[in-house]
Order: sequence, then structure tokens, then C-alpha cells
Amino acid sequence: MLPAPPKTTFASDNASGVSPEVLEALVAANEGYSIAYGADGLTEELRSEMNTLFGKEVSTFLAWGGTGANVVALQSLIQPWQGVICTQSSHINVDECGAPERFLGSKLIDLPSPDAKLTPDLVTAQLDVLGVVHHVQPGAISVTQSTEYGTVYSVKELQTVIAAAHAGGLRVHMDGARVANAAASLGCSVADFTCAVGVDVLSFGGTKNGMAYGEAIIVFDPELATAVEYLQKQSAQLPSKMRYISAQFSALLKNDLWLVQARHANAMAQLLADGVAGISKVQITQPVQANAVFVTLPPESISKLQAWSPFYTWERENEVRWMTSFATQESDVRTFLEGVHAIVNG
Amino acid sequence: MLPAPPKTTFASDNASGVSPEVLEALVAANEGYSIAYGADGLTEELRSEMNTLFGKEVSTFLAWGGTGANVVALQSLIQPWQGVICTQSSHINVDECGAPERFLGSKLIDLPSPDAKLTPDLVTAQLDVLGVVHHVQPGAISVTQSTEYGTVYSVKELQTVIAAAHAGGLRVHMDGARVANAAASLGCSVADFTCAVGVDVLSFGGTKNGMAYGEAIIVFDPELATAVEYLQKQSAQLPSKMRYISAQFSALLKNDLWLVQARHANAMAQLLADGVAGISKVQITQPVQANAVFVTLPPESISKLQAWSPFYTWERENEVRWMTSFATQESDVRTFLEGVHAIVNG
Amino acid sequence: MLPAPPKTTFASDNASGVSPEVLEALVAANEGYSIAYGADGLTEELRSEMNTLFGKEVSTFLAWGGTGANVVALQSLIQPWQGVICTQSSHINVDECGAPERFLGSKLIDLPSPDAKLTPDLVTAQLDVLGVVHHVQPGAISVTQSTEYGTVYSVKELQTVIAAAHAGGLRVHMDGARVANAAASLGCSVADFTCAVGVDVLSFGGTKNGMAYGEAIIVFDPELATAVEYLQKQSAQLPSKMRYISAQFSALLKNDLWLVQARHANAMAQLLADGVAGISKVQITQPVQANAVFVTLPPESISKLQAWSPFYTWERENEVRWMTSFATQESDVRTFLEGVHAIVNG
Amino acid sequence: MLPAPPKTTFASDNASGVSPEVLEALVAANEGYSIAYGADGLTEELRSEMNTLFGKEVSTFLAWGGTGANVVALQSLIQPWQGVICTQSSHINVDECGAPERFLGSKLIDLPSPDAKLTPDLVTAQLDVLGVVHHVQPGAISVTQSTEYGTVYSVKELQTVIAAAHAGGLRVHMDGARVANAAASLGCSVADFTCAVGVDVLSFGGTKNGMAYGEAIIVFDPELATAVEYLQKQSAQLPSKMRYISAQFSALLKNDLWLVQARHANAMAQLLADGVAGISKVQITQPVQANAVFVTLPPESISKLQAWSPFYTWERENEVRWMTSFATQESDVRTFLEGVHAIVNG
Repeated sequence: MLPAPPKTTFASDNASGVSPEVLEALVAANEGYSIAYGADGLTEELRSEMNTLFGKEVSTFLAWGGTGANVVALQSLIQPWQGVICTQSSHINVDECGAPERFLGSKLIDLPSPDAKLTPDLVTAQLDVLGVVHHVQPGAISVTQSTEYGTVYSVKELQTVIAAAHAGGLRVHMDGARVANAAASLGCSVADFTCAVGVDVLSFGGTKNGMAYGEAIIVFDPELATAVEYLQKQSAQLPSKMRYISAQFSALLKNDLWLVQARHANAMAQLLADGVAGISKVQITQPVQANAVFVTLPPESISKLQAWSPFYTWERENEVRWMTSFATQESDVRTFLEGVHAIVNG
Repeated sequence: MLPAPPKTTFASDNASGVSPEVLEALVAANEGYSIAYGADGLTEELRSEMNTLFGKEVSTFLAWGGTGANVVALQSLIQPWQGVICTQSSHINVDECGAPERFLGSKLIDLPSPDAKLTPDLVTAQLDVLGVVHHVQPGAISVTQSTEYGTVYSVKELQTVIAAAHAGGLRVHMDGARVANAAASLGCSVADFTCAVGVDVLSFGGTKNGMAYGEAIIVFDPELATAVEYLQKQSAQLPSKMRYISAQFSALLKNDLWLVQARHANAMAQLLADGVAGISKVQITQPVQANAVFVTLPPESISKLQAWSPFYTWERENEVRWMTSFATQESDVRTFLEGVHAIVNG
Repeated sequence: MLPAPPKTTFASDNASGVSPEVLEALVAANEGYSIAYGADGLTEELRSEMNTLFGKEVSTFLAWGGTGANVVALQSLIQPWQGVICTQSSHINVDECGAPERFLGSKLIDLPSPDAKLTPDLVTAQLDVLGVVHHVQPGAISVTQSTEYGTVYSVKELQTVIAAAHAGGLRVHMDGARVANAAASLGCSVADFTCAVGVDVLSFGGTKNGMAYGEAIIVFDPELATAVEYLQKQSAQLPSKMRYISAQFSALLKNDLWLVQARHANAMAQLLADGVAGISKVQITQPVQANAVFVTLPPESISKLQAWSPFYTWERENEVRWMTSFATQESDVRTFLEGVHAIVNG
Repeated sequence: MLPAPPKTTFASDNASGVSPEVLEALVAANEGYSIAYGADGLTEELRSEMNTLFGKEVSTFLAWGGTGANVVALQSLIQPWQGVICTQSSHINVDECGAPERFLGSKLIDLPSPDAKLTPDLVTAQLDVLGVVHHVQPGAISVTQSTEYGTVYSVKELQTVIAAAHAGGLRVHMDGARVANAAASLGCSVADFTCAVGVDVLSFGGTKNGMAYGEAIIVFDPELATAVEYLQKQSAQLPSKMRYISAQFSALLKNDLWLVQARHANAMAQLLADGVAGISKVQITQPVQANAVFVTLPPESISKLQAWSPFYTWERENEVRWMTSFATQESDVRTFLEGVHAIVNG
């Protein structure tokens, strides 16, 4: 028999709410007045904290959401007649309703990748069109860290793929909607796998890690930073009452809460993966390195399980995606596993 | 001698924080999980409340900010080869860094207007290019209510300007970043000066009236509504954790808080206007019908006054803008008036 | 030993000049004055001739070049938030430097196809995202006839793929840069494989079939036609002295010259294909159904052959493309075959 | 009584045909084959001739039409978040159906000017928004030479307006659809009022001065030139059989035919202006410095005169525009003057 469904959902990490410390900071920011669009003390503080986090002076811009952060970041990297190399399963390619093509006025050069990672070979194979006027000119690569398949680039993997990009004169964007989960997974500093390996602009996610809204655009190359605020405004991604985003981000950075929460989410994914490992009808389809578990299920069990506790099917046949977050409890995982057992083997 | 500056600023209504009821609702929304992008109960409730407010079934969409709401709304109204008639001082024309032109890929047909209102004559004069392939084809008008100059269209004025637009087959957008101040000023239902007079799409402002973030796009013509959610997503204006915006808006609508707050802001502007009426060196340049006071000041006093309490200079020589909000206190107005007296006459 | 290279090139059909009848018509059009942008008698005549050709009233628009005709045609078919399904090897996808993405502000949904043809299955597999706001919504398909691989859709093939498109509510564009070669190949009326099977808009090529410049956009659905002239003008594809394009097209249509020339080009491709069929080191990689021959060559012979007579390498390893045109002479084919023999077997 | 109408029209210089030498060159270019997109000998020759014309190495690109040349040129000059300062009556602002806004994704900052010229004061007044993120950032100015009102900037006027632009870091575009008429009017070298005074990119018109089609984009700053061919291709402005445009341009440059023809057109405008000077009911409204005559006519005579020989009304009340070209004959002018006399005084 099926237990009551878990109290959190495995549908997406953006279905979770706001973590208590973050909400408290948002409320605390509501003191007095602040000149809008970033000219406030809380935003100034956050900028300083980001410099500390990355161990160098970086340019920090705050945008509304993930798609907005990505399209502003990408605009800062390429000329209008250049395209962006990414994987076919990347969020910018499949989950943003064509926003990148609309904002860039150009093509995403989307490449098939079994683990949602770009490789040096994939990138290099695109460079032979450089200089040929008929073809979209690759101008940047976009890597997602952790990826849309819940995998994580190692520092070495990033170094080699970025080296391939640099060999063609390409710029590098990292979609870090789940950068916290990657940092937690790799156990190194976020600088180690961003600015230190040649990332030019990072979309630093907040929403999927316990904020109500808000993403940061971290620009490592000061020459690129000049354009960003104009691109934000023109792209409708310059929040007016910015202090409420800054306060949330600062709460995440304080005492490494962003890592604590991401480590927890990753651990919950691992627990879930371990739990299904013993169910022969459930096959894990991707290495579980962050906060996602991809599995194939017996086809007849998918909709039954979804009706009990919602989640999404994915690209391959009978494949589904389960996401964990800061809010996922061990008891949720155990309950969910019970449900899977009951339905798959029932 | 100058008193201590007021505790709120007259620089902009978006410099104010979040009103207590709204913040409380945002916090209360943080319960359990919600599927993202609007498939949550709070958003469903808000949609129902908006239907009640407008006395008919409307399509309610929630966007991040004012520029975002405007560019999505305008995209829903025109073909890519059409332009939008607006005034030269309209927010879409001067304060959005070209976002409308970028999202629309077309021209704003911006017309000079002394009181920031479109008139039937202004609109009609643009219609003779209809059908001439060389010229941008007017496809819609955009009226701001209350206007960027703090004036308010009467219902009659809207009827006549919209009739002129309809005569040319044009659609009608209302930029209602301060629609609450207009409703408070007119003393009629918001439906009376929107759907009842032929507005097709309304940008319904939340941020400037005490929300942390969030604007609604109210679509009155169901045929237009189909495209809006796609336009939102493609324009990076589809919030993921939408419940936090919905909760804030519902708090505003509850017990007419949105009107109570707007009435207060308008009253504070009137108090300020009354207070400067007796200062001969200060000339009020626009009728004070909402929450803005435009005045000319002796040039040498402007920067002195700004250094004491910040505000912006405006378009005409020696003209400045003072805005009030829900957070402006009578004591702030009185203190500010003291400062004006002291500096202008000092 | 190598003979002298052929007098025409097999590099591309756009390397050929203007056929004598077409040039004569262009010269003859230079009589007196004509109001620009299509309000001239020659353009009026061409419109009438196109109606005759298609056996119904069609809307004929004249654009500068093939990319221009395609981007105007596609804009007339989709909403800004919709995408266009095409093959990965389609001209719009690989040979237009991102022009479609720029003009449409949206995505090409480019699918792998071994023979450069869309199939019902390829189209149908894309329709499950309809209604899901996160994904680009397929709004049209674009088929190329004859294809970029020199293959030709049968009428039956077009019917089935268009039926699949219609099942999802999608519109249909045909890139007919080489529509004449397809008509010559199929031996039926051009109407039979365009308007009769549900094509909405056809890019009707002139340049590759003996014109100096100029392509027609044939719109079969009168409702779609209204927007086209505005889209042309806004897309910088409305020629001023249009009579010179109209005169060239009329010359092509007179006495079926367009088909006579295309039949000749196709026959020359067949002759070339027959000639290499006996060379064991040369493998034909695509059915030769129009005016292109795709072969693989021994790698070491490719650059030697190109140095003698230019042509382009293609997508697969050691694959090259040879194009014929109205200007290709039998003697050119025989000379070229001698060169291939000499270098490949030499 | 009215005479038979003139054999040429005063409606527009683009209503004229192709001058004999140019047509002959187009025909002569039809020899053998040429690799497309500019890799041909005739284009190479033209590039060399342009270097000679400007007395320095310039980058010459060939586009289809005037709007196309302008939008490519402007794209090469500004960032996507920048706008272009121009006059309200400029061709890019009123006669291109929003093409500049569409290709640039940004705003034209269009300023009122009684003689269609930008002035230093007009430009300087726009520079105070530089650095303010809410406002479109001026990135370039566009001057038209000769202007849309038939006036001509003196070298001195260009120097001062360009100095004002440079003071704000702005780039400079010249729309030279009628650059020949300006050169003929000023009596100096074309270099003297383009590269020598700081123009960065020139749209060099061919069509209005006796070509069938084709405009050149002359880029004076080598750093800007890199992007142009990609922008052309992506903007659907890269002609395939380019040799036919190159041949026409070379014919124009040979023996200064372009100037000979422009001088003739200017002289015909002067003859026309002199002829109407004595008709009291006809008022010349702009200095006649190139090939246009703007006059006001008694309102009742306008449509009568248009019915006899076509021309366009213009912006001011009862104002009309008469254009001359290389093809205008003295007898046409005399006949037209007879008609004006007869109808205006009749």
C-alpha cells in the first residue's frame, strides 16, 4: 500500500520555498528607503562579499531570474553575428522558449552530448567554420555546472574544454543555476572552477538554492563589465528595489549557507540514488554527482507514481528526473522510496 | 537652518520599501512546496481576485518588473512591422534603455506632449501613413495612467483618444505602473478607465505601490492572451517561484489596500504642492493629480536641496520631480517643505 | 596528363552568369521611367504570369536574394515565439550566417536527415512540446525543393510531411532556390508540389537558374500576403528599381525557359554521375535527382582536383559537391571527368 | 492648355533607369563564370578603384540596396544597447519601415531639424545621458549627404558636427545615397567630406545615380571592417553574383561618370528652381543645393499637377518634392515648368 506522499516534491528544486535565513534577511532589508537599481548599501555589501568569495575583484550584477541572467551574460560575450556552442540538453537550448536566440539575434550551436557536458572534441569540431562568412561564427561556449543531467564537470574537464574554446578565440559562459551544487560536489572553492579556469561570465544561481528570486551575473573580465548594466536594463533584467535580492544573496553567503544547503541537497540525491540502486526495474541513467537523479522506470508505473507525487519525464524513453533541494528531508526521501517500491514492484 | 532630512525620500516611489501587509503576505506564502511558473494555489487565487476587481474574466499574468511587463504587453499587441504611438516623455520611450525597440524590433512613434498625455489629434495625425510600405505602421498606442508627469487622464479623455486609435485599427496599451494612483485620483473603479473604455492590455503596477517586486499584465481580450505566456518566457519575464508575487498582489487587493496606499501617496503629493504654493520662487509646472509634484526651482538651490535630501532634475530648465509613496509621512512632507523654504529663500 | 580545366565550374550554380534571354530582357527593361518599388508595368505583367503558372491567383513579391526571400517568407508564417522545423543541412540552418534566427528572433529546430528531407516522423516527434511554455513552439516547417543534397521530394513525400505539419497546426515554407530543378526532375507542374500539396509560401529561385539577381516570394494564402510587403521593406528586401527583376523573371517564364534550363542542368548532373559511376574510387553518396552530384573521393586527390577546377568539400569525410547549371556544357562535363580520372587513378 | 507630360518624372531619382555606360558594363560582366560573394576579378578591381577615389586604403563592401547598406553600416558602428542620433526627416527614420530599429534592436534618437542637417548643438544636447543606465546611450550619429531636403553639408559644417560627436565618443555614419550629388555640389573630392572629416562608414549610393541596383559600404576604419561581411550575410545583404554590381560601380567611377551625372542632375534641379522662382504662388522651401526642389503649391493645384506628371507631397502643409536625375532632360524641365505655370496660374 502507498504511504502518504512526501512533504516536499522531487519535481524541481524551484518548487521549494525560501530557506529561513534567507527569508529573514529579506524581511530585515525592509528598513527605511533605498535609491533603486543597486545604489543601496546592501548591494554594495554583497559586491564586497562576492569579491571575497572569488578571491579577487569581480563585477557583480543582480538579475531577476535564470533565463534573464543567462541572456544578459551571453550578450556580453558575443557579437551579434556570432553564435554560442552548447549541448542539446542545455537549459538555454531547450528550456528558455528561444529567449537566447531572441536576445542574441543569433544561433545556439547545440551539440549532442550523452552526459550534458561539452568536450574539447565537440568544441574543436565547430571551429573549422571560423572565417567562413556563410556560417554562424562560434563566439562563445556555454557550460552548465552542475549540468542539466546532474553531472559535474571536474576542474580538469573544464580546463580542457576551455582550452579548446580559447584556441578558437571563443569566450566562456558558465550557467551556474546550480553552481552551489557543483561547488559542494567538487569540494573546492567556486573560484577554482570558474575564474581560475578561464570562465569569463558566470550566472550564479540563487533561486534554486533557497532564494525567492534573484540570480547574480559575475563578470570576471573588467573589460566585459562596462556593457552589462546597459544590457540588463535593455533586457528588462535590472531590478528596481535591488536591496531585497542583495539581502537574500548575502544571507546565502553568510557562514557558507549556500554550500551547506547544496551539500544537503546533494546528499539527499545520493540517498535517493542509493535507495533505488536495489530496485532492479529502476535503472539510474546518469552519474549522481549533484542534486538530480535520472532513472528509467517501467513505463506503466510512471503516471501512477506521478499521480502520487509529481515529477517530470525526461528525454529518453521511460526516463524521469528527480530533483532534491535544501528543503528535501530524509523522511521525504524514505517516503518517496517506499512509493517507488510499492508502485514499481506492486 | 536646515532640519534633519525627512525619513523617506521624494526621489522616487520605488525608493520606498515594502508595506507591512504585503511583506507579511510574502512571508506567509513560504509554506510547503509549489510547482513553479504559476501552477500554484496563490496564483490561482489572485487570478480570481483580478476577475472580481475588473468585474469580468480577465487574463492575469505576472512579470518581474515594469519594463518587463510593458515589453511583453506591447509584443502581444502589434505585428513586428508595426510601431507604437506614445508620448516623448513616456517611460517606455525614455526610461527603458531602448528595451521596447529591442523586444519589438520596431519603432516607438514618440510624440511631444506638454502634459504627457496622448490626444486624439496627436494620434489621428499619425494615421495617414497607414498602408504606405515605407513607413512604420502604427499598430498600437500606449497611454500611461497616471502619467510620467503626475497627471491623470479623465475617463472622457481616454475615451476620445482610444476612439481615435480604434478609427485606425490600432490596439491600446496602458502603462499602469501607477494605475493605483490614477484609480485613487479618479475615484472610480479601475475597470471604468481600462476595459470599459477599450484598453486591450494593462501593465498593472505593484512595485511602486509597496511590493518588493512584481507587476501584473492584465489582458482583456481573450484572443490576445494565448501568446502572452510564451512571450513572457521568451522575454525572460516568467517568474519561477511565482507564488511570492501572487501573495503580494493579493495582499494589495485585500481590503482595497492598493487604493488606500495610493490615496495616501496622492494626498501627500497634494500636501507638498499646497506647501510650496506659497513660495514664490517655486513654480508648480504640472497639475498635481497623482503622487508627483513637478516644480521649477531657482537654479542655485537645486544641488543644495538634493545634497540634503535626494531627488531628480527633469526635462525642462530648472525643473525637478518630487514623488510621494505609501511610505511618505506627513512629517516627512513638513520637514521637506522646511528644507525647501530654508534653501530657496535662505 | 591533365587537360585544360572546364570552361564552367562545378563549384556552384551561382558561379554561372546570366542566360542570354534573361540578360536581353534586363536590357530591354531599361526604357523610360518607372515608379519604384513595384508600381511598374513589368512587375504587373510578371504577377499575372505567376498566376498563370500556378493556375490560381497568388501573391508575388520580389526580393533581392535567396536568404532575403527565405527570411521574409518565414517571418510571414510564424509568431515571434515560434520556431521553424528544418533539416540540419538546410540552407537556412547552415548557409545563412544566422540570418533566420536574427530576423525571426527565434530558433530553427534543426533535425538530422540523411537525405536532407524532412519526414512525417521527424516532424511529429517535435509536436509533443506544443503548449509547454518552456519550449520553443514549432510554428512552421521549411522544406527545400530540390534539397541541398540534390535530392527531390516526391509529391507523395511532400503530402505526408505536410500532413504531419498540419496535424500540429504548423505552416509550410518551401525553399525553392532550385525549384526549377525540382519541377524539371518531377516532370509535373510546379503547382502540383507547392500550392496543391499545402505549401503556404514558396521562395521561388531565380539567381541559381540564370538571373543576375532576384528571387520571388509566392504566397498562396491571401491572409498571409498582407504583411509581406511590410516585412520586405523592414527586412531591407524591397528592391527599388523592381522592373529589372520582373523582366528577368518574365524572360525565365517565357516559353518555359526556366524548365528548359533546369532540365539541362539536371541532365548535365546525370551525365556527370554516369561518368563517375565507373570509377571505383569515387562513390556517389546521394541519389542524383536534380543538379547536384555528391561523391566521396580518395582524400589525397581532393585538393589536387580543386586546384585544377574549383569545388567545395561537404559535410561527410572526403565528401565533395559538384553542381551543374544552365551554363554547363557537355564538353565541360567530359573534361571534368577526364580530370577526375587522371587525378583519382593517376 | 497643358502640354504632354515630360518624358521623365520628377517623382524620384530612383524612377529613372540605368545610364547607358552602366548598363553596358553590366552586360559586359556576363563573361564566363565567377565564384560568388565577391571572390571575382571585377570586385577586386572595384576595390582598388575605391582606394584610388578616396586616396587611401578603404574597405569596400557591396550591398543590394540603400536600406540594406544603411542597416549594415549602422550595425558596424554601435553596440546593441546604443542608439543612433539622426534628424526626424532622415531616410533611416521615416522611409525604411523601421528597418534600423529592427536590425539594430535599438532606438533612433531622431531630432527635429529645419534643413535636415544635424548641428553640433543638437548632438551635444543628447550627450548628458551618457552613463545613465535608464536611457539609450548615443553611440553614433548618422548624417545624410546630400540631405533628404536637397541641402548639402559644407565641409565646415561636417567638421563641427563630427567634432561634437567625437567629444562624446560617438561614431559617425554618412548616408550617401546621393553622395554623388553632394560631391558635385561641393566641388571637392569625396574624401574631403568623408574620411578627411572623420566619417567612419559611408553608404555610397549607386542606384539613385544610374545603376540598376547596388550600393557600396565604404569603411574607413580597418578595425570596424572585420565584422562587416558577417553583418552583411546575416542581414541578407551579401549579393551572390557580385560581379554585376561591381561592374556597374566601376562604370560609374570611370571618367568620373558618377560626378558628370550628378552635376547634370543638380543643374536640372537648379534650372527647375530658377523656373519656378518667378511664379509667385510657388514658394521654394529649401535651398536648392543638390538634385531636389521643395516647394509649396496652392493646395488645389497639387493633385491636378500630380495627375499630369507624378510626384510626392512632403511633410509641411502644401509642400511637394521634385527630384531630378541623370536622366532628366532640359526639355523635361521646360515642359514641367509649363505645366506648373498652366495649372497654378490657370
